[in-house]
Amino acid sequence: MQKLIQGIHRFQDMVFAPRQDFFRKLAEGQAPQALFITCSDSRVVPDLICQTDPGDLFVIRNAGNIIPPYVPGTSCGVAATVEYGLKVLKIPHIVVCGHTNCGAMNAVMDIEMTAELPSVRQWLGYAQASASIVRTCYQHLPPDKQRRVVVQENVLVQLEHLRTHPAVAAALASQQLTLHAWVYKMETGEVFAYDSSSGQFELLRRDREATSGWSHEPPLASPQGVRHACVDL
Amino acid sequence: MQKLIQGIHRFQDMVFAPRQDFFRKLAEGQAPQALFITCSDSRVVPDLICQTDPGDLFVIRNAGNIIPPYVPGTSCGVAATVEYGLKVLKIPHIVVCGHTNCGAMNAVMDIEMTAELPSVRQWLGYAQASASIVRTCYQHLPPDKQRRVVVQENVLVQLEHLRTHPAVAAALASQQLTLHAWVYKMETGEVFAYDSSSGQFELLRRDREATSGWSHEPPLASPQGVRHACVDL
Amino acid sequence: MQKLIQGIHRFQDMVFAPRQDFFRKLAEGQAPQALFITCSDSRVVPDLICQTDPGDLFVIRNAGNIIPPYVPGTSCGVAATVEYGLKVLKIPHIVVCGHTNCGAMNAVMDIEMTAELPSVRQWLGYAQASASIVRTCYQHLPPDKQRRVVVQENVLVQLEHLRTHPAVAAALASQQLTLHAWVYKMETGEVFAYDSSSGQFELLRRDREATSGWSHEPPLASPQGVRHACVDL
Amino acid sequence: MQKLIQGIHRFQDMVFAPRQDFFRKLAEGQAPQALFITCSDSRVVPDLICQTDPGDLFVIRNAGNIIPPYVPGTSCGVAATVEYGLKVLKIPHIVVCGHTNCGAMNAVMDIEMTAELPSVRQWLGYAQASASIVRTCYQHLPPDKQRRVVVQENVLVQLEHLRTHPAVAAALASQQLTLHAWVYKMETGEVFAYDSSSGQFELLRRDREATSGWSHEPPLASPQGVRHACVDL
Amino acid sequence: MQKLIQGIHRFQDMVFAPRQDFFRKLAEGQAPQALFITCSDSRVVPDLICQTDPGDLFVIRNAGNIIPPYVPGTSCGVAATVEYGLKVLKIPHIVVCGHTNCGAMNAVMDIEMTAELPSVRQWLGYAQASASIVRTCYQHLPPDKQRRVVVQENVLVQLEHLRTHPAVAAALASQQLTLHAWVYKMETGEVFAYDSSSGQFELLRRDREATSGWSHEPPLASPQGVRHACVDL
Amino acid sequence: MQKLIQGIHRFQDMVFAPRQDFFRKLAEGQAPQALFITCSDSRVVPDLICQTDPGDLFVIRNAGNIIPPYVPGTSCGVAATVEYGLKVLKIPHIVVCGHTNCGAMNAVMDIEMTAELPSVRQWLGYAQASASIVRTCYQHLPPDKQRRVVVQENVLVQLEHLRTHPAVAAALASQQLTLHAWVYKMETGEVFAYDSSSGQFELLRRDREATSGWSHEPPLASPQGVRHACVDL
Ligand SMILES: [Zn+2]
Ligand SMILES: [Zn+2]
Ligand SMILES: [Zn+2]
Ligand SMILES: [Zn+2]
Ligand SMILES: [Zn+2]
Ligand SMILES: [Zn+2]
Repeated sequence: MQKLIQGIHRFQDMVFAPRQDFFRKLAEGQAPQALFITCSDSRVVPDLICQTDPGDLFVIRNAGNIIPPYVPGTSCGVAATVEYGLKVLKIPHIVVCGHTNCGAMNAVMDIEMTAELPSVRQWLGYAQASASIVRTCYQHLPPDKQRRVVVQENVLVQLEHLRTHPAVAAALASQQLTLHAWVYKMETGEVFAYDSSSGQFELLRRDREATSGWSHEPPLASPQGVRHACVDL
Repeated sequence: MQKLIQGIHRFQDMVFAPRQDFFRKLAEGQAPQALFITCSDSRVVPDLICQTDPGDLFVIRNAGNIIPPYVPGTSCGVAATVEYGLKVLKIPHIVVCGHTNCGAMNAVMDIEMTAELPSVRQWLGYAQASASIVRTCYQHLPPDKQRRVVVQENVLVQLEHLRTHPAVAAALASQQLTLHAWVYKMETGEVFAYDSSSGQFELLRRDREATSGWSHEPPLASPQGVRHACVDL
Repeated sequence: MQKLIQGIHRFQDMVFAPRQDFFRKLAEGQAPQALFITCSDSRVVPDLICQTDPGDLFVIRNAGNIIPPYVPGTSCGVAATVEYGLKVLKIPHIVVCGHTNCGAMNAVMDIEMTAELPSVRQWLGYAQASASIVRTCYQHLPPDKQRRVVVQENVLVQLEHLRTHPAVAAALASQQLTLHAWVYKMETGEVFAYDSSSGQFELLRRDREATSGWSHEPPLASPQGVRHACVDL
Repeated sequence: MQKLIQGIHRFQDMVFAPRQDFFRKLAEGQAPQALFITCSDSRVVPDLICQTDPGDLFVIRNAGNIIPPYVPGTSCGVAATVEYGLKVLKIPHIVVCGHTNCGAMNAVMDIEMTAELPSVRQWLGYAQASASIVRTCYQHLPPDKQRRVVVQENVLVQLEHLRTHPAVAAALASQQLTLHAWVYKMETGEVFAYDSSSGQFELLRRDREATSGWSHEPPLASPQGVRHACVDL
Repeated sequence: MQKLIQGIHRFQDMVFAPRQDFFRKLAEGQAPQALFITCSDSRVVPDLICQTDPGDLFVIRNAGNIIPPYVPGTSCGVAATVEYGLKVLKIPHIVVCGHTNCGAMNAVMDIEMTAELPSVRQWLGYAQASASIVRTCYQHLPPDKQRRVVVQENVLVQLEHLRTHPAVAAALASQQLTLHAWVYKMETGEVFAYDSSSGQFELLRRDREATSGWSHEPPLASPQGVRHACVDL
Repeated sequence: MQKLIQGIHRFQDMVFAPRQDFFRKLAEGQAPQALFITCSDSRVVPDLICQTDPGDLFVIRNAGNIIPPYVPGTSCGVAATVEYGLKVLKIPHIVVCGHTNCGAMNAVMDIEMTAELPSVRQWLGYAQASASIVRTCYQHLPPDKQRRVVVQENVLVQLEHLRTHPAVAAALASQQLTLHAWVYKMETGEVFAYDSSSGQFELLRRDREATSGWSHEPPLASPQGVRHACVDL
């Protein structure tokens, strides 16, 4: 905890003080560019990876970057935060970002790891579809490759869940929202984005923002025909 | 989104490349110093405020930094992530960090704001105790002061919820875990920590880590006798 | 009830007796061609409309042909029946079939109709996305047109829900399942099927089974760009 | 699917066209004679068995013809559909109809069959009472006889569940509703109805509608004293 | 609290000490004669009213003597306690005992009383059938009479809920359990028991235990024909 | 049941008749001194142990004296009864009273005992923290000692749950409520109360009401430092 406390004072001296005006103005209201949903893993730091400023990313983090489907009349933190982000803050982009070496995803593929973790096991029920897809379509791969694949498939599965939320469905239908499926490869610092035309996660290239389709096309093509995970991951 | 994509490449060039060895080693496993539970608000950036490195903070974020109490047999992202953090990663500290100007807390005090936000309303049910305390004990304050106070009381209420989780209860009982109640004041960049001896949130001072008591004493004194929120906040 | 009881004896004499061998053989096991999910409405009779025989259609019926998204660890009749249909019976097609003049869909658009119907109101929460889409994208239409549209959008929304079920996700990924979005127009006896290439429900033409794409292509295109409901409905 | 599509056109030509006036009139509103709750099994076709017309039967179908008891504040398709049928459509009869060779009932007696079917297992929890009764009262019977018996006991158990729904309780108390417990024997095409005076399911005889009591008496006698299932089934 | 603490010492001196052997033996195990389910109301003291000894009554108490129907896979105190009482303790009788002047039942009839009591409102949802029956069948009565009636109807409704629990259903089917519907009239100290032959609650007479039928017959006749609540209550 | 029925008449003759005025007056309204939450065990009779009169104790009883934490939007008997007791009846004290030889607590420590008791197992999930604490902090004790300890720890755990209820949190914050953690030792008739200054359950002494602190101090000190259960129990 010493590191944190010293850090807070360094933040005040080195970061806040020099940009005091920026922070004071920001305190009046937020208008984030994206809702970023990622894992609780300490090695995934959204604002560091995206080099964003305070005010840029509205963030949801939990083990496995999981998004329960919408269930009316129940109390769900992800549902509430997504609803707030879309209906109050009018955020135009949602990024669901998985990562390599994810403990949650390892447990999805090897459910025995959760024998003493009842809450984790229950939670990972929302990634059961991810595991089912890997077991059905990638049985030929060795376990370590399957663990790479499930990270990718899970991001797509969670995006499907996201689409069941009324605020998301309405914003998508009226073209006010774009969904993005990403994976952060922590060994190399690279980010891969799902490309619906190839049906694969592809390296997010420097010039990608220039290409026409990617952010306008549906991020989730139907899986029929092609279902091979990204080879580079 | 262009800012994010350009940022990712700047991250790769400016941050990852120079510290490649650090990142590669980190990819082998995490051993975070603290579980940091905070709001999704884009202006609260834990690793910036604490000046921590990747690998330091295991992070949960949702609207209102809310922690549902433990309910066996249900699927809850916070419960799962806390359980994973304590039982798998053996994290010794949990910080629950609220912040000023919190949209969720404003809505807790003015529930009509959620008339068109059913999921938000349901979720804020977990902060109903925070609102009840403010209405019972701080009725003499004007609305804007009450909004300041509810942020503080809510952090304490969520800590109570946290204590119902079996992994937390057992780690507290065996002295393997310390709980911390913080509030980030975004107008000044200051952080306030709850001090059980004074029964108030107090400015986290530079030399605090040197004082004996704070991290060893129970972070949550019973409120009887004294219940006045921090005057500086 | 007299009509039913007399009907049962007519069934025994006129239908069962002449095809006794067929029924006896069928009693040994079922291998249905499709899982047909439709409304409880008495005017929608799947086996009559499709002129199918006993053994052909595995059927789920409830008010509004609603499919709750998958939630692990909860007890849901639709989830169980879908799982049984796919994993035990290996059914290769699922048809979700809405219909015109649907009381449930009328109530979705005019929630006051359910003031004295708490269970109906709760259940229609699963069609909240359908109503949100109509309110967002079709506000220019008069109420009666909106009621026509919501029937179509709801079928698509329920298909999205269906895709969150692990058995569906795995069967889709491995190309063992095709989804179909239909609407039965009870005034004319016509059936309309969603065509992902046009982004509309189109009349199910006599020669349609001959055309290549329709049952192999994804039935659900992303709504961007085109979102005008079928004009004929 | 070809069979269905061709069937739809045959329906339009052979069924709809000749009775166009009937169908057009029917499209204006429904006034069904009974709410028919039965299994999703493809071999059970309510309108064929009862030789009823479109508009006669309001239908709920799910695996095992299961009726969850009423739970306020939760979203349940059966509860909603029953409420709609009684309070909006004022349907005066509810038939719960099980059937022989029911896969769901087989699984109720042999829960190991659901090892890979988590949703089915959860759903069949609502038939746990049916299994408990069979295990307690019919232990002397061989497994295949027990599977015959559980179909009957389950219909009675589900009727008990039905009675917990407020709309059902009120309609029963004011004598506006009659409940019927039926079993369809698919090997012979026969239907058996529970007779509370004998405490058994008895063949629905041709002249039964002439007898006084059966549809006016309570369909569910308390089981004390007599609890032997129908011998003919 | 002083009264309680002094009472405990009086209990030790006056009650425990003289019957020390009885209490020590009792500490080895319990074999209660009945499971007594009643309201939390401080004026209803089961062991005083029945003049029973420690060890005689296994007791469940909550606001309104409510018994949620059985829902598999959920955590319910009443379900657990009933299951324990029947399957572990083999208790042969269950008494559900309502009482006059019940605050919970008053709120059932006047739901506005719970405007500030969200948990009470939710809980009384399980007595919604009781209110529906009174509104449907007793609309001619003035409010105070309706409040008398709802107490009686609610005991019958909760008994119906009780019958959905597998342990209850199996014990009833095998004649190992008898259910009793009682109302305690606190103004007179009288207890009324439901008599299925008259379809009314009748004064529990001194010689009643001698009469043949009452505890062997089903306590709950179907309400058709007669539905007038006890006139004496 | 004969004993009960005869007892009721003895109650009317011997208890009610002589104190008729007291009972008639009491029927007008209740103002209980305490909310007493204890186990359903037939050997624990609150009004006998505390020698209280009708009207003194508002009582909740269930297997294991368990208090589910507050979950907004769900239907819970304990939550409703606590809310009613605090907000309507303004009760100033809540006693949670465990007891030795508790079957529920034995099952908490030996979960295999519930293999055939699914509802009990689910319910005891709310005492999982109690078991975790015992397993973590008292592993050196033999099983019978652990069963003694878990009774004490469970009372403290349930008090933590109680504090998550909004009505409790607000009443505690405004000093209108005091919580008490008790254990009834049925072998000796003694009652032990948790003393936060010693961090132990201590014999409730005759003169205790005279001592200053006990009922004014928080009943639950944080467990750090000292966590040894009462040696006398
Ligand atoms: Zn992860
Ligand atoms: Zn916030
Ligand atoms: Zn319909
Ligand atoms: Zn079946
Ligand atoms: Zn009461
Ligand atoms: Zn006990």
